[in-house]
Amino acid sequence: MTTPIEAVRWSPAADAVRIIDQRRLPEHYEERDLRTLDEVVEAIQTLSVRGAPAIGVCGAIGLAVVAATATSDPGAFPQELRRMATAIRDARPTAVNLAWAVDRVMARVESLADRATILAVLREEATRILDEDRAMCRAIGEHGSALISDGARILTHCNAGALATGGMGTALAPIYVAHAKGHRVAVFADETRPLLQGSRLTAWELARAGVPVTVISDNMAASVMRSGMIDLCIVGADRIAANGDVANKIGTYGVAVLARHHGIPLYVAAPTSTIDPATATGADIVIEQRSPDEVAVPFGHRIAPVEAAIHNPAFDVTPAELVSAIITDTGVFRAPYRFG
Amino acid sequence: MTTPIEAVRWSPAADAVRIIDQRRLPEHYEERDLRTLDEVVEAIQTLSVRGAPAIGVCGAIGLAVVAATATSDPGAFPQELRRMATAIRDARPTAVNLAWAVDRVMARVESLADRATILAVLREEATRILDEDRAMCRAIGEHGSALISDGARILTHCNAGALATGGMGTALAPIYVAHAKGHRVAVFADETRPLLQGSRLTAWELARAGVPVTVISDNMAASVMRSGMIDLCIVGADRIAANGDVANKIGTYGVAVLARHHGIPLYVAAPTSTIDPATATGADIVIEQRSPDEVAVPFGHRIAPVEAAIHNPAFDVTPAELVSAIITDTGVFRAPYRFG
Repeated sequence: MTTPIEAVRWSPAADAVRIIDQRRLPEHYEERDLRTLDEVVEAIQTLSVRGAPAIGVCGAIGLAVVAATATSDPGAFPQELRRMATAIRDARPTAVNLAWAVDRVMARVESLADRATILAVLREEATRILDEDRAMCRAIGEHGSALISDGARILTHCNAGALATGGMGTALAPIYVAHAKGHRVAVFADETRPLLQGSRLTAWELARAGVPVTVISDNMAASVMRSGMIDLCIVGADRIAANGDVANKIGTYGVAVLARHHGIPLYVAAPTSTIDPATATGADIVIEQRSPDEVAVPFGHRIAPVEAAIHNPAFDVTPAELVSAIITDTGVFRAPYRFG
Repeated sequence: MTTPIEAVRWSPAADAVRIIDQRRLPEHYEERDLRTLDEVVEAIQTLSVRGAPAIGVCGAIGLAVVAATATSDPGAFPQELRRMATAIRDARPTAVNLAWAVDRVMARVESLADRATILAVLREEATRILDEDRAMCRAIGEHGSALISDGARILTHCNAGALATGGMGTALAPIYVAHAKGHRVAVFADETRPLLQGSRLTAWELARAGVPVTVISDNMAASVMRSGMIDLCIVGADRIAANGDVANKIGTYGVAVLARHHGIPLYVAAPTSTIDPATATGADIVIEQRSPDEVAVPFGHRIAPVEAAIHNPAFDVTPAELVSAIITDTGVFRAPYRFG
């Protein structure tokens, strides 16, 4: 098999963050090396790199890279490094992994004074974050692949794949591992309106890795299930509450209801870091509303009259009772979920 | 209230078919008068006019219009009229209403010889088809409006509205009638990928008639229902089997499953002519697959990799047990449905 692509990593000379520019997929495959603070911040802000784990890795490696370009004045260096860290950290304020990764590498150098040592430790910690992310993905893949039998036909939603992480993804990791084991798998990818991460990204990375994939409009999932074409569903998660309720990309809840109606298991795959014991149930999760134009004006083409209201929730909440199991890097959990 | 728009009708001087060019909605409102055979055929072929009843009306009025432009040689006229009828009839071979309407007006003039009489009878029969279509829509609206209480929040899918008929539509007719009675109604319109008839057409005609409408991506219907924002669903039908199974635009079945899960009634609105006693159940209905590019290349913008397969069924089948009632021009039918 072909291995999954790498969305974010060190450039070969280790002097840049190398990313796949996700804005141009699936039509154009373009790798970019980010070397300056502006380039790192811009790549994160414009969603050239996206997916919580991938953004975290990009921020950590990015900081290590740009720190080396900072002033060589020993007195000014600590302050400039902090300024760089803040700039990267603030590139996407709602991306928890980004703040977490930047804070983690900065904590390692807090008590250090020597510039060369600081640069070396930043690199070491950023590399560790990347390696841990890869290991996390692989562990999810190993645990989850046990649920995928030879010949399985799998429906997924949005993109929780290699493009969203430093490794082989979360929801797609079990599929990649099963495929690598020689199991025949076939994936149906919901296109995932409004931003089409399923058709643009999931279908692209699976096809590139040699996994057979079929794209459907979101509203075709029901008839595909009824036709007996789906054996299981695997989706990712933005946040998992203590009781097992799952917040994920808008449309996930609909897939879960349809799966239950047709007797098809629905699995959620996510790192244990996604589980938030402080959130008791999904009812505590505030649903972000995004720009109406994502729905009304795709690709600059207006598809809804200006007089119509637009409803554009970023995600929805799937109640735990519709989740057959939660696949994490530490194992597979089944109901009743008690993460509190 | 503002009355719904008229998708197809006589031009004021009765010398043309006046249509709303649906290809340009919602951005551009443009009426076109079709006066020649080429214009009528082209409008039907390019989906400038769409929706089974609207196409039938357009074909009938169109034939009456273009017949008047035929040769005045009395010997050649009958043959030229038949050629025109065949050309219009064949503009969309799968549109049953088109063949039905053209055959109906031609049957009226079969035994006539005088050119002026033939032209007058063609006009008379075409006008009758338009009037019957309007009356059918209004009857559906009257019967269905009894199911819509003041303050009702209604989800619909695709476009079974005024734009699809010569009158006020089928699925939207009960909404227009309830609105005209002074009931407050609010509509959620699924955008209805791949061709977006919900956001482009349904939202446009409702907004124009002063009915509050909110557009959602298809995959948002589940969370909107779970949030308690929907009281009932009304959809149209392409064909209804003898047992009440309903073939309609892809995604209708998913809406039906979600409605049932949330305890929300799902109504199907359609003329009795949509009921096909010769089709025992939905299993006898062959699902047409449409062009992959409708899904993969919307507006000329590629959103899925060329390596991915595309699944693009034109419609799906909703089993009768998920249909709370079928609203027709002759009344409201409830399960068990026995149309055989």
